[in-house]
Amino acid sequence: MALEKEFYKSKEKALESLRMAKIYDKVDRKILSILNLINKSVEFYTSSSCAGRIVLLEIPKIGDKKNAKFVGIWHRTIKPTELKSALKEAKTGLLWIIAQPPIIHISVKTSSAADKLVKIANASGFKNSSFKSFNKNIVIEICSTERLDAPIGKDGVLFCNKEYLNLLINIANEVILKSNLKLKKFKSKLKKKL
Amino acid sequence: MALEKEFYKSKEKALESLRMAKIYDKVDRKILSILNLINKSVEFYTSSSCAGRIVLLEIPKIGDKKNAKFVGIWHRTIKPTELKSALKEAKTGLLWIIAQPPIIHISVKTSSAADKLVKIANASGFKNSSFKSFNKNIVIEICSTERLDAPIGKDGVLFCNKEYLNLLINIANEVILKSNLKLKKFKSKLKKKL
Repeated sequence: MALEKEFYKSKEKALESLRMAKIYDKVDRKILSILNLINKSVEFYTSSSCAGRIVLLEIPKIGDKKNAKFVGIWHRTIKPTELKSALKEAKTGLLWIIAQPPIIHISVKTSSAADKLVKIANASGFKNSSFKSFNKNIVIEICSTERLDAPIGKDGVLFCNKEYLNLLINIANEVILKSNLKLKKFKSKLKKKL
Repeated sequence: MALEKEFYKSKEKALESLRMAKIYDKVDRKILSILNLINKSVEFYTSSSCAGRIVLLEIPKIGDKKNAKFVGIWHRTIKPTELKSALKEAKTGLLWIIAQPPIIHISVKTSSAADKLVKIANASGFKNSSFKSFNKNIVIEICSTERLDAPIGKDGVLFCNKEYLNLLINIANEVILKSNLKLKKFKSKLKKKL
């Protein structure tokens, strides 16, 4: 009972954070309706999310994620000109283009509800979904597998020619388009099954 | 009690599969001592594992993983000449170089034991460890985050020049070296804490 009370208190806080994020236009529309569907259920609340993104990241040394610097972030498909324009900000270290599928973290009241939601996510194509913790707090992560992590330059200079860069952009865009389809499928399944 | 019996029966089968894999030299030595440490405990058994690898993969169309073809697989660091030699096998589709950190799947008898093992894995640097299922069968996945997924050619022809290819090989090797360090740390922690 105490645990249940704790869960609802945390849910209240999480929903208030989400409300503020919405006000500041920090939640992607593509994912917002999904968050709302999940939060409507007494069994769940969403704690963080990303609708999928293409990122230009500068890493001073391999593995030095602490000092990594974002050079560009897009929650949508991009054009080569946009990437080139962002590249002007790149200065020191290895430059990576990264495409990430959507990710949603959800706290869950019971293990059976968690299991149900992970199954719905898997059936929607989010095959990398898993339980991040399940002792005091049950937390699940909804995620899929397609991604791109490729280095494209160093110290502000591109390694790769125009054709190769365009191919990388196409692949990154493909990750975003696939993500959008999976989000749609997930939303439709949530409507039917939650 | 029936569940416990089921667990031990499945463990017996898994250990027999592992024994056969050892005989056919299909288990990497770097990870074998870790599997043995985990399997020694009555709480766990390992069902599948990989010590980390560099892969050359040919994918006919983006996302068409079913028809993907391995052109090269190495569970160790590689030299540019080895990659070039393997490239001769590439013929149709987009060619990717992929570096993957270690992955271990473990079935667990109780949720508290699962929680303990995931914590040890996290403290060893396997920050992407999670619970894959926890209803009837508790399964955890030990994994870390560093990886490389970069396209390098199409229809048997490389896009990238020698310098860029060497850089990609360096990064892939770095994933393997980091993986080895994490496996060592994990092994030492398992010895103390399991």
